[in-house]
Amino acid sequence: MSNITIKKIAELAGVSSATVSRILNNTGRYSEETKERVLEIIRDYNYRTNVVAKSLRTNKSKTIGVIVPDITNEFFANIVLAIENYSVPNGYSIFICNTSEDHEKEKMFVRDLEAKGVDGIIYLSGNKQIPEQTTSKHLPTVCIDRNPGNKEIVVVESDNFSGGFIATEELIQQGCKRIVIIKDERDVSPMAERYRGYREALQKHGIPLDENLVVNVKVDVHEATKAVQHLISRGTAFDAIFACTDWLAIGAINALHQHQILIPDEVKIIGFDNISVAQHSYPPLTTVEQDKTKLGEIAAQILLDMIDQKKPQKQNIVLPVSLVKRNTTL
Amino acid sequence: MSNITIKKIAELAGVSSATVSRILNNTGRYSEETKERVLEIIRDYNYRTNVVAKSLRTNKSKTIGVIVPDITNEFFANIVLAIENYSVPNGYSIFICNTSEDHEKEKMFVRDLEAKGVDGIIYLSGNKQIPEQTTSKHLPTVCIDRNPGNKEIVVVESDNFSGGFIATEELIQQGCKRIVIIKDERDVSPMAERYRGYREALQKHGIPLDENLVVNVKVDVHEATKAVQHLISRGTAFDAIFACTDWLAIGAINALHQHQILIPDEVKIIGFDNISVAQHSYPPLTTVEQDKTKLGEIAAQILLDMIDQKKPQKQNIVLPVSLVKRNTTL
Repeated sequence: MSNITIKKIAELAGVSSATVSRILNNTGRYSEETKERVLEIIRDYNYRTNVVAKSLRTNKSKTIGVIVPDITNEFFANIVLAIENYSVPNGYSIFICNTSEDHEKEKMFVRDLEAKGVDGIIYLSGNKQIPEQTTSKHLPTVCIDRNPGNKEIVVVESDNFSGGFIATEELIQQGCKRIVIIKDERDVSPMAERYRGYREALQKHGIPLDENLVVNVKVDVHEATKAVQHLISRGTAFDAIFACTDWLAIGAINALHQHQILIPDEVKIIGFDNISVAQHSYPPLTTVEQDKTKLGEIAAQILLDMIDQKKPQKQNIVLPVSLVKRNTTL
Repeated sequence: MSNITIKKIAELAGVSSATVSRILNNTGRYSEETKERVLEIIRDYNYRTNVVAKSLRTNKSKTIGVIVPDITNEFFANIVLAIENYSVPNGYSIFICNTSEDHEKEKMFVRDLEAKGVDGIIYLSGNKQIPEQTTSKHLPTVCIDRNPGNKEIVVVESDNFSGGFIATEELIQQGCKRIVIIKDERDVSPMAERYRGYREALQKHGIPLDENLVVNVKVDVHEATKAVQHLISRGTAFDAIFACTDWLAIGAINALHQHQILIPDEVKIIGFDNISVAQHSYPPLTTVEQDKTKLGEIAAQILLDMIDQKKPQKQNIVLPVSLVKRNTTL
């Protein structure tokens, strides 16, 4: 166990604590020999005090904080992995903070990350807007997939509008006319954009918007199942579903299976995200691929640049999406 | 941005760096007034220096490192979440290190975590044995779900033997006689135990072990699909599959769907872990539930106790498992 303090180092080196402090701070008088002895002791203790002391000296802890709504959601986990894969070779470690979409927890984490001395924060928030007091006033911050409504924060996101558009147009081109959209009941920016893409595609192809086909749910697989069951039981006719996340699509598929409705023969489905459950659902799910690796990588790259005092060139980076065709539309 | 060093504090407080060090170290001569002024400046700078300095003083960073083979695997993500849910209310933050099952990365992370001054490490390793040099000699360490082959390290794991036994016995009681087991080709301890449970259940019910039904694969959904396709194409008769992870079971289900083999009518399947994909596969998957929350919670609890110098009462904690019955066996 690395069990050492300035006092202990001083004791072991046979010098005063003040001398150790002077060496750590690179100020004042001490012999080269004393310095060597002190540094040797620090090295022996696994660099620990060295790094902590260095952090105190240079004010860089070489750590970044990542605030994530739900680490057990593969979409977020993939982004976190990409952030780590970029940060670690650059000498940074990451603190992961899981908020469970709880505002109070978010505030607490931001305070805690500041106190722990992280050099910057990447924010994957499940909340509609990130309240002023839950973003750090003191640290470089980058948001992924959420617009904090704060002009000064850099946002990296997918082209959600295009995603909604290409999914809906694909269904139309396959002959569907009554396309249900299942989306987050909260008016978060990615969802609003996907919905705008849906409406635009309908309009382009002369299909009027039918409010009966617009389904708002809590983003949860069971809620999607219930919503589709409800549509079926009230006799709403539909020949396609655009689900705004893959998990919502899985919920919809479950409801259709329960009612022996054939996919894709009677109802076609497209999801959003392209997480592994999309590939392994039955039938495998056509979905809009978000580039999770790029989202994480670019956010990390911008943040590390900001920590190095480089100003970001753009405040808003939008990454392209693509359609992955599988059996729910074929 | 919190941009402060001992030198800077000294400057702002109008005292020498040595005085600031004395105050941080709580040693030597300074006036109460000077101390107040210095602490005030530190407070203004968001506690950062305070916390880092405190870490240097008390040698507690109030952080723990968690080494995980694959954060995008929901099984591991759930355990990590449980570790965090236990640690945060106890004042600890966690560093997550994703190894992608790479030995070199593991070594690097352990060194890095020591250098960053974490107080302890929780190890979820994908490796068969954790090599001596990849565990910290200096820090309290707890392993989850893997036995490092190092008697001094505390291990928290599921009762894998019982899991293998109850899964196999359930299939036997439903009339199955030719039960395939799909397991990790690496001889890792949890897999070896599940396989032992499988053999014990067969023996109890007088069914001889048929080596043709023992399938070793790389733990990957596609490998499981290929393996089952291979069994089918070489004409091996089987009426059930016990897959040693849920993802292996999903791979098996995909192969059976491709060959229009009915589940559970012609082949029954049981998985292991109970992650969400088990609930939403088609048909929903019967599986052995591991208590992921408890695994994480207990490991964190033991580690925090060890950090507080409390000796663990047991070196090996084994948690019970249970069978969750769904449609692949009903």
